This record gives sequence, C-alpha cells and structure tokens, in this order.
Amino acid sequence: MNISILRLDHRRRRDARITTHVCLTARAFGASDIVLSGEKDQKLMENVEDVVKRWGGSFSINYKKNWDNYMEEWQKQGGEVVHLTMYGSPVQEVVSEIQKTGKKKLVVVGGSRVPTKVYKSADWNVSITNQPHSEVSSLGVFLHMLMEGKEFELKFEGADLEVVPKAEGKEVLTKKNDP
Amino acid sequence: MNISILRLDHRRRRDARITTHVCLTARAFGASDIVLSGEKDQKLMENVEDVVKRWGGSFSINYKKNWDNYMEEWQKQGGEVVHLTMYGSPVQEVVSEIQKTGKKKLVVVGGSRVPTKVYKSADWNVSITNQPHSEVSSLGVFLHMLMEGKEFELKFEGADLEVVPKAEGKEVLTKKNDP
Repeated sequence: MNISILRLDHRRRRDARITTHVCLTARAFGASDIVLSGEKDQKLMENVEDVVKRWGGSFSINYKKNWDNYMEEWQKQGGEVVHLTMYGSPVQEVVSEIQKTGKKKLVVVGGSRVPTKVYKSADWNVSITNQPHSEVSSLGVFLHMLMEGKEFELKFEGADLEVVPKAEGKEVLTKKNDP
Repeated sequence: MNISILRLDHRRRRDARITTHVCLTARAFGASDIVLSGEKDQKLMENVEDVVKRWGGSFSINYKKNWDNYMEEWQKQGGEVVHLTMYGSPVQEVVSEIQKTGKKKLVVVGGSRVPTKVYKSADWNVSITNQPHSEVSSLGVFLHMLMEGKEFELKFEGADLEVVPKAEGKEVLTKKNDP
C-alpha cells in the first residue's frame, strides 16, 4: 500500500525532536514519504535524510508551506485521507475498512491546533485510543495495524548500516556501498 | 497483566517532551506506572499527574536517581524485564513467549546511552523493527502487541474528561466528580 504522511504545524524550536521521531517512525513502518508544514526546518530535514542515506530505503521528506489544498489534491488524484486524532473513530473499528479500498493513503498527523477543515476533509478521522498520548505512538500503532505487521519484513535497500537482531548485545553490519 | 515502565537517563532540557510522550503512551496503553531516572524533572512529573487527574485511571509516576538494582529487585520479586532496543530480538518472534509466562513485566526504555548491564540483566532485549525511530513508537507498538489490542477496551476510572469517539468533529464529556 502506498502511504504518505502530512505533518501539520511544525514549530522549529518546540517540535524538533517530536517531528523527527514522527519522520523516522513513518519511514520504519513503511511510509514512502512525509510532507512537513508549519515552520521550515532545514536541519531537521537534513537529519532525516542522513538517516535514510545511512539506513537505506527511499523515504523522502519535503516541505510545503501551504498545505491548504494538499488533502483535496490527494483525493482528486484518487487517494484517501486518514487524519489521526484522539477524537476520531476507534482504529480497531475502522482499520479493515481503510485497508480494503486499496487506494493510496495520506495520513495526517496534527500539530498543536488542527483546523476544523481537516476533520471535514478527511475520509476518516481515526483515534488510537481516546486518551491523550503522542502523535509518535499514534502513528506507529496506526501504521502497524494498517500494515498488519508487514512492516517487520520491510527491506531497506542500499543501506550502509544494518542491524543483526540479537537476544543480547549489539551487532551492526557496515557495508561499503562505494567502490 | 501488570506492566511497569522504567525510563533511563532522562535529560530535563533535551528530553522533556519525548519523556512526557513516553509517560502518556505508557498510561494510554495499559501500564500501571513509570519510574524515571536521570535528571529529576518535577514539572514533567506534575504535568503527567495532571493528565491522570483529568483523564482518570491510577497511573503513577515516580523518580529514582539510582536504578542500578531496580531491575534485579524486580526479578527477585518474581517479575521479568523487557528492554526495548533496536538491536534486540524481533518483537514478532518473541512477544507470545513474553505473554505466556504471565509474570509482571518491567519494560525498560533507554536513553541516549544504555549500559551493557541492561542488555545482560534483561530477560528479553526486544526490537520493534531494527530501524532507528523512536522510544515513543517502540513503546506504543510493543504495548499494543503485548496487550493484543486490549488497551482499546481500558476504562479510566474517575475521569473529569472523556472523549466520545466520532467520525467527525470533537465531543468531550465533562464530568464533575466533586460534590
């Protein structure tokens, strides 16, 4: 499934680490790319690109100052929009319906204040529990459920670094991709 | 299942929001409490306690400067320790084994540098994918898998606020628990 992320309302000073974790979670759980809006944060984007370079795969990160028409454009191009919010429909009740359509998904991760327009435009407003926690864990758990655990089989091509899973200790393979 | 969290090496300035998200994720996904180590952060603890007060349940947060013997004490009392690390055994391969023992679990969430001792003492070192992402999403997905989705049925008693899940918009019930 083609999954793209839209992160609303990034604030450089306050959100740098949270947004970075959102980006890395998106990548690790199978999204193809993320679009950031809010304040432009070149350093954050470079950090994420650096992770992609070292750990492989083709995840991309872009900035879009005005995301106003982005959701509608996505839908016009045949895609669907899933907005993650603690006020939405319980994920366990809607995730199979979301999977079934087979259409490409834009997953919207809110910021400090999400305009009403987002709730109205989204094909689904989805809650990952109705308790306050984190956009990072919401995105992780949502993608895990949407992917049905297939994110654990993902291969990240062209990686310089690859972990060898171990019951104890650390093992990392370093590959020289340059000649 | 009785689940407790140990967050290592909190740094007040750098980690405040990430650790807050770790705490709230722990609560929302069914842990009974969290112990923070590293720098003491009274404000963070009060913020989390305020969420518990408003949103209900009995989640508690404590600070422990020296966690050196905490894991061993936990094990002596019949509990087991699960350390979340991107270098560990794949969660999808070990989670049912972890569930089966029925013993209380201490889930250890690392900080910037995790001592070798943690890897050695843990009953399981578990990876949530072998890619770099976030302690917040790792904890969320791990607890979701450990709880087998039962976190979605949790009730948080004594809440002042309760979300009514909706396909669109926001609805929050405000309850007066005081006479």
